[in-house]
Amino acid sequence: MNVKIEKINERLQELVATSQSGSIKDAVLYSLLAPGKRLRPLLFLTLLESYGLASDDYLDIACAIEMIHTYSLIHDDLPGMDNDSLRRGRPTCHIQFDEASAILAGDALLNLSISTLLTCDMDALLKVEVATRLFESSGINGMIFGQQQDIYFENKQANLEELNTIHLNKTGALISVCLEMAALIADPKQALSMRKIGYDLGLAFQIQDDILDVIGDQDLLGKVVGSDETNQKSTYVTLLGLEESQKKVNELFNQCVEDTKKLLRHPDTLLELFDKILKRVS
Amino acid sequence: MNVKIEKINERLQELVATSQSGSIKDAVLYSLLAPGKRLRPLLFLTLLESYGLASDDYLDIACAIEMIHTYSLIHDDLPGMDNDSLRRGRPTCHIQFDEASAILAGDALLNLSISTLLTCDMDALLKVEVATRLFESSGINGMIFGQQQDIYFENKQANLEELNTIHLNKTGALISVCLEMAALIADPKQALSMRKIGYDLGLAFQIQDDILDVIGDQDLLGKVVGSDETNQKSTYVTLLGLEESQKKVNELFNQCVEDTKKLLRHPDTLLELFDKILKRVS
Repeated sequence: MNVKIEKINERLQELVATSQSGSIKDAVLYSLLAPGKRLRPLLFLTLLESYGLASDDYLDIACAIEMIHTYSLIHDDLPGMDNDSLRRGRPTCHIQFDEASAILAGDALLNLSISTLLTCDMDALLKVEVATRLFESSGINGMIFGQQQDIYFENKQANLEELNTIHLNKTGALISVCLEMAALIADPKQALSMRKIGYDLGLAFQIQDDILDVIGDQDLLGKVVGSDETNQKSTYVTLLGLEESQKKVNELFNQCVEDTKKLLRHPDTLLELFDKILKRVS
Repeated sequence: MNVKIEKINERLQELVATSQSGSIKDAVLYSLLAPGKRLRPLLFLTLLESYGLASDDYLDIACAIEMIHTYSLIHDDLPGMDNDSLRRGRPTCHIQFDEASAILAGDALLNLSISTLLTCDMDALLKVEVATRLFESSGINGMIFGQQQDIYFENKQANLEELNTIHLNKTGALISVCLEMAALIADPKQALSMRKIGYDLGLAFQIQDDILDVIGDQDLLGKVVGSDETNQKSTYVTLLGLEESQKKVNELFNQCVEDTKKLLRHPDTLLELFDKILKRVS
């Protein structure tokens, strides 16, 4: 995995290199190259390899995914949104630079993710199909809808169904589309099944996030713990308690493993990545 | 032109209709359907017609352009950016809703512009080519670079060259690409020439904007006049004076007319639109 992460980081740097110099480029690089786990691009690349494709050929799409993820973090952290000061172990973008730079750096990253996808080396029809799914997932019917609901339920009690809607959109949509896009490229008839696995994985990931916000180590996580309580957010932990939440993570994880084994001839590397994601402490 | 504007507005509404309900959709519709001049989509559609194409077939691309323009206005108006309270004759998005909704509505519109372009009915190769130019123009090497430089020169004197760089990127890039995209679709060998005309037109438009910020009528403009002075921005008017600025507008306009006549067999409708743009009082 470390080799892949290095390749992703190198390519991200190359893709930003042609940008006009100035505070926005600096802010983009600062946030994009902060030590991240690169889970989303890793899911995409690892599944491509499980299908027998050379993941290096699709590095640009992996980078486009990470750009979308990073832009959403920068905007989420803004004073007008979650007002967070720490991210990936560093001051958030608007703290390190200023608010205007953080707004524009987010915008620039979303733009750059599109440009990166549009100019990558792939058949035009497939490119359009893959990009369509990606930006549907990150838009107002996916990630952004989840962010809206997340804000809506601040200081308001969400029930389990409402919480699932938040998690599945805010976190699940982008994680899920990583697996779906790899399937669209390698084996389109598995795309919907992979999307379903991605949603389960995304939900498990987010419940784990809720758990870590209570029991996690701030230094390892690189972000402030206890922020859910501060923002009076309903989480799996507040609704079900720690033990039940952990049980739910395990159930979802087992479901992902089972479904993946049914679909892939060589599922081991992907399952290892799932395992790493769900057993993470940061 | 009014028929075209109506068609654009109707289609914009349809394109947002499938979005998840909630505050972000409300904010998107509020800003997108505020009475705008629709100059950018009109330039694109009118040039297509000058080439003999049916502009109705390209309405979605016109809408994608307007979505980008509107997202940039919403983010530009934010407290962390220009902190404006009035836009298109109405309270700005973050005043009418709140900051989080305005940030996410802008993000949603940029996402939606991509989705709209990707799913429009056009040959995939051409679609990728047109979209590539559009998002290069709106990104960190175009519009966003202009916004960065605009902020950089607040409270700082910009010379004429620096001011041109701001204008050509902040305003010129998106106006220019409207003409370039129409040429890419209808007559690709004219694309570069059309880009050049678009940059001249964009510069003239922005100088006119500087002039209107001094002598314009706030009620007609639908935004606060005198904001350049408040934000201590260098403008054509502060650098060259009103008379010289007006002369520059006329020079650029005449250049656009001359160049257009050389390229198009039936330039009249487009030239009428140029005329309307440059003689606007709002």
